[in-house]
Amino acid sequence: MEQVKVSLNESDIPRQWYNLAADLPTPLLPPLGPDGKPVSPDMLAPVFPMNLIEQEVSSKKWIDIPEEILNILYRWRPTPLRRAIYLEKHLGTPAHIYYKDESVSPPGSHKPNTAVAQAWYNKQFGIKKLTTETGAGQWGSALAFACKLIGLECKVFMVRISFDQKPGRKLMMQVWGANCVPSPSTETNAGRSVLKEIPNTPGSLGIAISEAIEEAVTDKTGKTRYSLGSVLNHVLLHQTIIGLEAKKQLKSIGEKLPDVVIGCAGGGSNFAGLSFPFVADKINGAKIKIMPVEPTACPTMTRAPFVYDFGDTACTTPLLAMHSLGHAFIPPPIHAGGLRYHGMAPLVCQAIVERLLEPKAYHQKKCYEAALTWARTEGPICAPETSHAIAAVIDEATKAKEEGKEKVILFNYSGHGLMDLSGYDAYLSGKLTDYELPDEEMKKYLKDLENLPKAEMRKTCKW
Amino acid sequence: MEQVKVSLNESDIPRQWYNLAADLPTPLLPPLGPDGKPVSPDMLAPVFPMNLIEQEVSSKKWIDIPEEILNILYRWRPTPLRRAIYLEKHLGTPAHIYYKDESVSPPGSHKPNTAVAQAWYNKQFGIKKLTTETGAGQWGSALAFACKLIGLECKVFMVRISFDQKPGRKLMMQVWGANCVPSPSTETNAGRSVLKEIPNTPGSLGIAISEAIEEAVTDKTGKTRYSLGSVLNHVLLHQTIIGLEAKKQLKSIGEKLPDVVIGCAGGGSNFAGLSFPFVADKINGAKIKIMPVEPTACPTMTRAPFVYDFGDTACTTPLLAMHSLGHAFIPPPIHAGGLRYHGMAPLVCQAIVERLLEPKAYHQKKCYEAALTWARTEGPICAPETSHAIAAVIDEATKAKEEGKEKVILFNYSGHGLMDLSGYDAYLSGKLTDYELPDEEMKKYLKDLENLPKAEMRKTCKW
Repeated sequence: MEQVKVSLNESDIPRQWYNLAADLPTPLLPPLGPDGKPVSPDMLAPVFPMNLIEQEVSSKKWIDIPEEILNILYRWRPTPLRRAIYLEKHLGTPAHIYYKDESVSPPGSHKPNTAVAQAWYNKQFGIKKLTTETGAGQWGSALAFACKLIGLECKVFMVRISFDQKPGRKLMMQVWGANCVPSPSTETNAGRSVLKEIPNTPGSLGIAISEAIEEAVTDKTGKTRYSLGSVLNHVLLHQTIIGLEAKKQLKSIGEKLPDVVIGCAGGGSNFAGLSFPFVADKINGAKIKIMPVEPTACPTMTRAPFVYDFGDTACTTPLLAMHSLGHAFIPPPIHAGGLRYHGMAPLVCQAIVERLLEPKAYHQKKCYEAALTWARTEGPICAPETSHAIAAVIDEATKAKEEGKEKVILFNYSGHGLMDLSGYDAYLSGKLTDYELPDEEMKKYLKDLENLPKAEMRKTCKW
Repeated sequence: MEQVKVSLNESDIPRQWYNLAADLPTPLLPPLGPDGKPVSPDMLAPVFPMNLIEQEVSSKKWIDIPEEILNILYRWRPTPLRRAIYLEKHLGTPAHIYYKDESVSPPGSHKPNTAVAQAWYNKQFGIKKLTTETGAGQWGSALAFACKLIGLECKVFMVRISFDQKPGRKLMMQVWGANCVPSPSTETNAGRSVLKEIPNTPGSLGIAISEAIEEAVTDKTGKTRYSLGSVLNHVLLHQTIIGLEAKKQLKSIGEKLPDVVIGCAGGGSNFAGLSFPFVADKINGAKIKIMPVEPTACPTMTRAPFVYDFGDTACTTPLLAMHSLGHAFIPPPIHAGGLRYHGMAPLVCQAIVERLLEPKAYHQKKCYEAALTWARTEGPICAPETSHAIAAVIDEATKAKEEGKEKVILFNYSGHGLMDLSGYDAYLSGKLTDYELPDEEMKKYLKDLENLPKAEMRKTCKW
């Protein structure tokens, strides 16, 4: 019998999160306010609780995970590390392919790792209610789940087109007691003003973010805050439990450090969660190829410049130093809803600029081809986002075969695809289209960035 | 930290299935042919491969699980035994509630335990293709999954109304390479004759079974067989790995034998899989309450007589000794599609007649209420079928509280509900209806049984 599953005892779960900000060769560029000056923690206080703001700006390398959070994560963590021996055989590769199975959480993805932590810190701070936005619904359902378990109210603004077309995720949120409304809604100024202009708008993540923030900051009781599912430092921090577990699991079976680490990246959190503990090894001299993978339809890391830009369409957030396609960017309707964000986590972007990461982009047809190969060899049906990681894994494993090298490839199986099978339908019936962003269109969106502050790296980088 | 998850090493997986037929106080009543005489194994040969027919009629107590089958089951087995401490706290019960989590398989239920075994035995026998029927799609997707991994063609006749209304399961089958067609179809005589009479029929499981059997037995190459997902002895046999694992897991943490064992029962296989190894203890004198749970809308075990009846609507199968509502029974459209079968596994029925089991029926509103309590305390969203088990668990745990007894309650978490959220929608919006079968309606269906042979237990029963 070949070992296909590496468990980790509950007692061996990591007790601290890893903060890459402490190890980056160049200090992280700070978020800026509308005046072009760094925002101070207290300026974020109406939006986030102070304990999370402290994590957001922390330069401590290790941050303790409170026991109460671990007690909730134990419901599905440590997640299994699995070896994809059937895919290996199918490809005829000498590579060992391992994946961290984050699909086993009740909402079906890595998202609850931070949802639980954020809900807990908010509760500790005396907050009664969280607001958020969601696109296809992965994040909204994870936050609904966490709020229900921890005892907070939860309000989710869900992009209208998904609200109408994908009732499954909305129903999951309702089962977990959240109030899920289509965005734009009539419940906020931001929503009403969009509806007045474009009554039949399908909505967008940018608008939904604006609505969720508005509802949080205008609550007169002061007991409501906003929660974001990716991009920010503290969100990525909470996800590092993934990579820290994986490291222990690889070690427990006597496997070497991976040669290649892969994750799909939309806002960057699942990729960062798996890879940052290995970026630490790379900074210390280990030879590891670390690849965030994105769609060619939304080529943030592979084609967009490193700039200061807003996190939302309505320009209400601070300016973040990141690769951005422009805050007005409207992504084409690819099936990987979680990979359609115009920007990318500043921590991921800075690591790219420091040449610690090697981003790559894939067309969605190739990703679904990979997803089908996966389902028909390994068994599980992956999320459209996760298929991007698998496409890169297949390429790297094929390369290892050509080179005759016994590489270790590790990737993050960020979620299952059971709530999002329509892309498979399109692929199987030959109706799936690829989309490559034309230069002209890209230039149009990037124009918005011209009058914003420049993101310049301080020249202490040793690379 | 409280232990909420009991793992079992891959090396401790059970190596044999348990066959309750060998232990029943009274020998199992045999299936009868149209002439009222017991069918011989070779009469079943056009439908099933001989190696599975041997299991079907076997009186051996333990049957070895081939290593090749274990190698596939290892992909998700042993499944976790979990303790529902959050539900316990919510109920304030002294009971220890454990559940075997069968939702972790790629198709999301216990069904692949037998799908893999059946596909493997058919392949061994030289078969190239399996046909089957499916209602809501749990079984069809499990067989599609197993056939893809083992290398068989798979054709699924899916009840038309589900085919149209529940595209998710159909898509899963297609991802796993199966040919899924709506039933009645134009591809069989059985299908065509129904369509001629009722062109707009929503279809039924009975018709779909007739189509699948017809396609198998009329294949002139002789390389096609039919596969059934529940009811038959060999199917229940393959599921006993669930209870055998659970027994080892309870023992590994020093827990006593359960006081109560619960599973939902439609055809009986998930219930039997968990409970039969404990029925063995009961036959040997242990005091265990073993409860199959069904919907009041399809009260096979709690209200129907123990009779000889056909397994399908078209009366093409042998006569089985079972509790039956009549082969023409048309169940009301409750959401638990897997619990709408007119009969019940003969092994389960005989154990009921021998008073080894205590069946109970629940209304669907109470089941969804239980499912919601479950999701909001434990986290996961259960299948509509599984909610019946949870309703009974909550009642038993509440009783333990009233009695002040520290009971051990074990149940089978047979599947997740992510592909079947519409029932939650109906419940949350107050649109769910209960359904109790009126005596008059029941009598109408039972009339069909009058001219069939009687099922009389031989009087060796010691109870």
